Amino acid sequence: MKVKEIMDKEFIVVSAGDKVVDVSIKMENTRKFTTPVVDDDMKLVGWVTSFDVMRGLREGLERVSDIMHPTEEIVYVNENDPARLAVLETAHNKLVSIPVLDDDGRVVGVVRSFDIVETLSQLYEIKVSKIFEAMNQELKGVSWDELMEAAAIITRRRTGKRIKPAEYEERIKNSTFGEAIWATGGLEKFFVGLIAIGELVIARKIARARK
Amino acid sequence: MKVKEIMDKEFIVVSAGDKVVDVSIKMENTRKFTTPVVDDDMKLVGWVTSFDVMRGLREGLERVSDIMHPTEEIVYVNENDPARLAVLETAHNKLVSIPVLDDDGRVVGVVRSFDIVETLSQLYEIKVSKIFEAMNQELKGVSWDELMEAAAIITRRRTGKRIKPAEYEERIKNSTFGEAIWATGGLEKFFVGLIAIGELVIARKIARARK
Repeated sequence: MKVKEIMDKEFIVVSAGDKVVDVSIKMENTRKFTTPVVDDDMKLVGWVTSFDVMRGLREGLERVSDIMHPTEEIVYVNENDPARLAVLETAHNKLVSIPVLDDDGRVVGVVRSFDIVETLSQLYEIKVSKIFEAMNQELKGVSWDELMEAAAIITRRRTGKRIKPAEYEERIKNSTFGEAIWATGGLEKFFVGLIAIGELVIARKIARARK
Repeated sequence: MKVKEIMDKEFIVVSAGDKVVDVSIKMENTRKFTTPVVDDDMKLVGWVTSFDVMRGLREGLERVSDIMHPTEEIVYVNENDPARLAVLETAHNKLVSIPVLDDDGRVVGVVRSFDIVETLSQLYEIKVSKIFEAMNQELKGVSWDELMEAAAIITRRRTGKRIKPAEYEERIKNSTFGEAIWATGGLEKFFVGLIAIGELVIARKIARARK
């Protein structure tokens, strides 16, 4: 996934000559805490946060050029960079948004931290049953019921709690990947549990084939 | 994981009677786009964003009480809520931060979108080799070399590309879970690949045991 797939294309821009008062109204109306400053060719020439605007209003600074950060202070990404890079830059620099440039230095979007949260959280929201369905398709010759039975056995071995295959099925229908990794204590443990289920069901399948 | 584990405890607070000018300086100095408004008992009585402060400065509104959002408009979470809830609230409402309350309605922290990005991205940053190490430990009687060999065979079957076990090992040492799920085309596909490798290695282990 590339930066351009997660960036907000409905961003606002301002010019260095714009009035600080007008920028504050524009930011408030569009609910943007930050905005790129561009020239007539949409090239990035500065960056303004609402902190800069507050200072401008307080100190009576009239124009964007009086309050903006110069380009060398701006953290930005290229539209073709991996989305991961935008994620890392946002987290490491504790930024709410960063501008996205094309190869010519023109602003083509803005990546916002809550958009990243949304993208990342989609991964968490996948139902665990989807993973089991994929596993079931992969393990040819193993029925869904056998898979649920193996899952119930592994759960009992690991937690000491008796659980019926039908209860297990109900549980994975209602829980997400995100809940499962927190519940099992981390990604590796979650996968290990699945591998254990896979191992049991495969061993049973092979044993059956040899009979 | 609970909200209290991901919240920022170094938040700022303001009072309804504080001057808007002073709040703007406080927000700028601490680089906070938002701040809870609390009473003497730290109970949440309002919420101020830098949009409200900009408006206050522009329109000459003097006190926080003139610009703050009332409590009924505030999206908040309890410190003992699952962290997932804060993630969902942030993403769905496109917020940069939300206040965290204890059972008595006192403000005990603030969850910020870039902190969530950091927490979520840690999941992505787990090395794929960690998952294989966990798998290797689980599959007793299978050596690491056998696992890498099976992985190379499955990769060739699925992609048509020949890859040596040592190359595969090098690849998983250098790639993260995040990269792997994007590269394989999603979580389910990534997991199906792992199950296929597990299936092959288990089949070989059982065949060896029967000899």
